[in-house]
Amino acid sequence: MELVEPVLAGDRRALARLLTAVEGGAADLPQALAALYPHTGRAWVIGITGAPGTGKSSLVNALAKAFRERGRTIGIIAVDPTSPFSGGAILGDRIRMRDLAGDRGVFIRSMATRGSLGGLSRATRDAIRVLDAAGFEIIFVETVGSGQSEVDIVRTAQTTVVVEAPGLGDDVQAIKAGILEIADVLVVNKADRPGADHTVRALRAMLELGHPVSRGPLTAHHGRLMQAAPADDNDSQERLWLPPVIETVATESQGIDTLLQALEAHRQHLLQDGVQPSRERERIEIELLDRLQASLLARLLSRVPADVFATVIEQVQSRALDPQSAVATLLEAYDQVIKIHSERAAS
Amino acid sequence: MELVEPVLAGDRRALARLLTAVEGGAADLPQALAALYPHTGRAWVIGITGAPGTGKSSLVNALAKAFRERGRTIGIIAVDPTSPFSGGAILGDRIRMRDLAGDRGVFIRSMATRGSLGGLSRATRDAIRVLDAAGFEIIFVETVGSGQSEVDIVRTAQTTVVVEAPGLGDDVQAIKAGILEIADVLVVNKADRPGADHTVRALRAMLELGHPVSRGPLTAHHGRLMQAAPADDNDSQERLWLPPVIETVATESQGIDTLLQALEAHRQHLLQDGVQPSRERERIEIELLDRLQASLLARLLSRVPADVFATVIEQVQSRALDPQSAVATLLEAYDQVIKIHSERAAS
Repeated sequence: MELVEPVLAGDRRALARLLTAVEGGAADLPQALAALYPHTGRAWVIGITGAPGTGKSSLVNALAKAFRERGRTIGIIAVDPTSPFSGGAILGDRIRMRDLAGDRGVFIRSMATRGSLGGLSRATRDAIRVLDAAGFEIIFVETVGSGQSEVDIVRTAQTTVVVEAPGLGDDVQAIKAGILEIADVLVVNKADRPGADHTVRALRAMLELGHPVSRGPLTAHHGRLMQAAPADDNDSQERLWLPPVIETVATESQGIDTLLQALEAHRQHLLQDGVQPSRERERIEIELLDRLQASLLARLLSRVPADVFATVIEQVQSRALDPQSAVATLLEAYDQVIKIHSERAAS
Repeated sequence: MELVEPVLAGDRRALARLLTAVEGGAADLPQALAALYPHTGRAWVIGITGAPGTGKSSLVNALAKAFRERGRTIGIIAVDPTSPFSGGAILGDRIRMRDLAGDRGVFIRSMATRGSLGGLSRATRDAIRVLDAAGFEIIFVETVGSGQSEVDIVRTAQTTVVVEAPGLGDDVQAIKAGILEIADVLVVNKADRPGADHTVRALRAMLELGHPVSRGPLTAHHGRLMQAAPADDNDSQERLWLPPVIETVATESQGIDTLLQALEAHRQHLLQDGVQPSRERERIEIELLDRLQASLLARLLSRVPADVFATVIEQVQSRALDPQSAVATLLEAYDQVIKIHSERAAS
């Protein structure tokens, strides 16, 4: 793909075109991504997630501006749910552009891929790599919502920020429980609203439930590095990170400096405490399993005749065959095709 | 599994135990599900989704009570995000139980499976079938959030209700766009709050963008059956369903009767207009592809030696190999193992 060299050289139009290929697919995309891959691994990827109404976009904008003032270049990937009424993502970009327009140190892209069976998380990973190879130092990945797929996407980040806001209603507890485990930094945004103190206290209480080592006097040290075993200072054990809870009012830039310091502290934790390599290894493993699944299914579908598949679906629909047995039937049909192929190849 | 007969006979303890097996896995679960499968297909599955704070749980409770008054039996599956701080799901059940306690025509279950790579949607599908086989006439599947995985889960439903509420903040537009396409019925809950009219109007406007046939005078008929081509009355084309927008205050049972009528109208549409079979076919196809992926990956992982996998991960981490080429390498290693096996078997 002729876009690889220009992207590496910092050409923004080539970058935009390559990201379009990442979203929509292109015949020579795998080669382009393979060529870019050796240039990746330098960016700091920060995931931002949380429920609707928490003000994630404002927070990302405020953080981007603050990091820009410190000379860092910024990529922003906003992952939106698929829309048949398209235009939402593009509109979002335009609104953001007002704030950060004309700054060549910032590149903003919304992803609204029709993401069936993991397509969106694959596209997001690839988009991160493209921005990384293009030299952006910090890449924000912002996801709307807080379901499993958002969690999967955020897992591609090195530092994960979970955003809450006061007074979002009765489901908030459930959401928090599900995503607290992935939070490196917790933000209570819109902290000038009534109930902010309560939200902060509730989050701290839940964190303590989840991190027993942080009980007692240690809770005062939220956001600093903690030893897994406080009694044994000279041990080489991996140090624990306790997620700090930070209050912000993103639209007024309140609390943004404190949040920046917390993010930098987490970055230092990753780099200095040997956490980064094992986390990256885990991310790669998840990605390879995800891609393998998709490839294996594509191979099967190209080999099992369509009428076999159609017959099995009919049998499941008529309740003559249950879904698990249907899968066994299809796997047998596949193995049979493979066997015939290899016998023919051998003879 | 000795639970199959008691579940079919309506034993609630056996039902609870079987659902625990569905969540946690059990050696003889596939056989049990296969034995139950011929008894499925009778229930009406209603999916309820929407952002946090919209009052989905209150809405499901109000609907369950209203359907109970009309003599229907009800199963409720509440899908929660995975929590390491467990207890959330169980607590939710207890709170619900206060309202519907002691009614043997209602069965409530929260699902909080650690759902990696589609595990949660598989468990939800199986739980629906278990309740279906146990004879519950209407099964509600309630999901927290509105990400892709929630959309996948809701797709297992025959009728999908998307819940909104006034004043949930700036992300609401994006969420709406993503899930409008799956909505059969739209609810603006908490309709006594300021801004409800605006939310209703916004939803109707978005629906009209997505359903051009509903423009003009036809918009007055939201929620009724529409012809795809109004000029040609005697045509046998599939009739279109235009999602109605219904205002409710679930905690006060306001609007629940109207919502019930809309749900019943959608059910009639499915049954009378030949939509049900093609939709079910599609659901089965999605499920089989999902299960095939998981099975194919499990087969590969049982055949490719762990050290080969570890080496490939290291190469990806050191940037010597890009992820897509890594997948190709692993597939080749797998094919090689298969080939050796089949040659041995042949000789």
